Amino acid sequence: MEKPFVYADNAATTNVSDNALNTMLPYLKEQYGNPSSIYTLGMDAAKAVLNARRQVAEALGAARPSEIFFTSGGSEADNLAIKSAAEFGAKNGKRHIITTNIEHHAILHTCEYLENHGFEVTYLPADEDGIVSAEQVENAIREDTAIVSVMAINNEIGSILPIEEIGAVCRKKGVLFHTDAVQAIGHQHFDLKNMNIDMLSLSGHKFHSPKGVGALYVRTGTPLESLIHGGAQERGKRAGTENVAGIAAMGVAISDAVECIDERNIRLAKMRDRLIDGILSGIPYSRLNGGRERRSAGNVNISFRGIEGESLILALDIKGIAASSGSACTSGSIDPSHVLTAIGLNEELAKGSLRLTLGDGNTDEDIDYILEVLPETIKRLRSMSPMWQRICREEGIPDYTV
Amino acid sequence: MEKPFVYADNAATTNVSDNALNTMLPYLKEQYGNPSSIYTLGMDAAKAVLNARRQVAEALGAARPSEIFFTSGGSEADNLAIKSAAEFGAKNGKRHIITTNIEHHAILHTCEYLENHGFEVTYLPADEDGIVSAEQVENAIREDTAIVSVMAINNEIGSILPIEEIGAVCRKKGVLFHTDAVQAIGHQHFDLKNMNIDMLSLSGHKFHSPKGVGALYVRTGTPLESLIHGGAQERGKRAGTENVAGIAAMGVAISDAVECIDERNIRLAKMRDRLIDGILSGIPYSRLNGGRERRSAGNVNISFRGIEGESLILALDIKGIAASSGSACTSGSIDPSHVLTAIGLNEELAKGSLRLTLGDGNTDEDIDYILEVLPETIKRLRSMSPMWQRICREEGIPDYTV
Repeated sequence: MEKPFVYADNAATTNVSDNALNTMLPYLKEQYGNPSSIYTLGMDAAKAVLNARRQVAEALGAARPSEIFFTSGGSEADNLAIKSAAEFGAKNGKRHIITTNIEHHAILHTCEYLENHGFEVTYLPADEDGIVSAEQVENAIREDTAIVSVMAINNEIGSILPIEEIGAVCRKKGVLFHTDAVQAIGHQHFDLKNMNIDMLSLSGHKFHSPKGVGALYVRTGTPLESLIHGGAQERGKRAGTENVAGIAAMGVAISDAVECIDERNIRLAKMRDRLIDGILSGIPYSRLNGGRERRSAGNVNISFRGIEGESLILALDIKGIAASSGSACTSGSIDPSHVLTAIGLNEELAKGSLRLTLGDGNTDEDIDYILEVLPETIKRLRSMSPMWQRICREEGIPDYTV
Repeated sequence: MEKPFVYADNAATTNVSDNALNTMLPYLKEQYGNPSSIYTLGMDAAKAVLNARRQVAEALGAARPSEIFFTSGGSEADNLAIKSAAEFGAKNGKRHIITTNIEHHAILHTCEYLENHGFEVTYLPADEDGIVSAEQVENAIREDTAIVSVMAINNEIGSILPIEEIGAVCRKKGVLFHTDAVQAIGHQHFDLKNMNIDMLSLSGHKFHSPKGVGALYVRTGTPLESLIHGGAQERGKRAGTENVAGIAAMGVAISDAVECIDERNIRLAKMRDRLIDGILSGIPYSRLNGGRERRSAGNVNISFRGIEGESLILALDIKGIAASSGSACTSGSIDPSHVLTAIGLNEELAKGSLRLTLGDGNTDEDIDYILEVLPETIKRLRSMSPMWQRICREEGIPDYTV
């Protein structure tokens, strides 16, 4: 029998859809023109970029395609948004930034960089469900606030943040609002022309387009300073020959992603809930991280006492299950997840976490398989774990693994 | 008969080679893991990135693979190099930058940005052949010079700059040296471990890998500040999920590109010289821009009196010839080329330029076809050109087009 393979790390990355791949292939083969060239081969490439810009704008409900700036991915989009706002803020004496303590490192490390360059950053604390409220944002806004950046959906625990309300507060106070929506595309409806969002970051490889392409939405009228200076691409705001194939792929992939958000969320949430219930009931001393309400449809994040997350991931890998502990971007780091510690977990629980994120490719059989493999894997790892044995001893827990 | 197609704009971009395409395809299909993930699918992606890093390092003669930082392209690499040097320079009170007046806009506009942020930039003037000497650089270096950036090969006129000598001068003076080698890969030998180059930018799509991937070489010991902050990718210096497919493609493409530099240059130079001689002898009132010595093997840049470059490009396009006037990155701009004006051309000649850049795909038949089509095209355009007629009238030139 072929070894089963269950990919349950869709928040880390996704496969390229057939539609996206077939769309990009011509631009890797015969349609190789530079979109800045004025002859036919170049114009055809430029048309592909323009078409994708329309598709992305439409998928987000942007007022016009010119509000979409293609980047090399979500991290570049985040850096572009925050640093641009900082640049314009500084010109007006505004050197204060508001964000949350559960943002992706593309936001947090950019903010730290700016703290070293004369900016002050308020990191709003998320509650135990991974939520930051509009009221918290409102209370933190100051005269010198240059930008508020709050993610749409957290990448580790799937918490859905109230960006509409936060946007409304920012609009009322006249402060720029950016959201990192990298995890939200295909899971959340956006109608940007009717929302109070000034800038929004997205990343193609999270919704079945290739790695190396993303975009920043910038509402018309919002000032934008380049992060990458040079040629006149992207209306002079993002230099460098366009990744035509990747951009074309992302255009169709985002159209596909937003076509059936509600159906997708219903299907994924059903699988998610079966996973959560099955794990919590089947594995003692496990706990769900983040709340059950306001949770992204495909996200499961559970901590197991006496378990070292990395060992669990490798044990599951042997069984053909691809999952993560914390986010992919910080894998290999020995520090516990900043998100899990932010919502109150101690180091033991934060390091003993498992993130399973479901996507279009997952089936009920995948859930069956995970629920079959995981309890025995946890039991086996605990039976070999001095940490688990110490916990049992110190806390008087009967060791079910012996 | 099928319409002929001659691609003579290899300095703008190149097609993806079969080898590069076949190498990248698995990473767009089944091998879609995130290189930061620790399970097998992720590790396989990480191995592809590592392998490509080795290939790029080897192709450049770098001391070690860890000196290669993947970026989204040449423009990002240029920005990263210059802004990082500026960042570290400023910390030590060094706010002076030296470059040339014929650099790519990715350098020039980055320098202009820094001029608006307290830096002083010396733009060394190229001579009429598009060369800047090591002596010019040496004379411009000051106590507070943070970096010298001089391109390896000019993208418009193909001039080969003396970067080895310039590097030696910088090393002697203890100043950081960066070179934009975007046009040089596959045309020039690099043995970086034995050269005085601290940083070098390259762009994959100039040597038959896809658009959207490039690299910055950074000599071990050279400080580097991120341009894109976030995850720990690229040893913490360039955040964002790696463009695995593009990086893998670039690895094999650069290996292929450096395998036969001498043979390539001999073959291209022969075609180039036949083109230059054929055009200059066959078309009156044409002149070669840049020198014949120290000229990149595939570069032809010729100005025609009384011709508007954009009209010429479009006329050639109809005949199936893809060529450019100025660089692709500035196409669409109505300004004359800054490179051509820098080497002394007046606006009329700068705007009446044609750049033909040859690559591996070109054949002797392509040269025949261009030499057949171009004279009659120029004659036809001149016959309809009020500018040409004015020139004939004012300068007493007999109008050969009537």
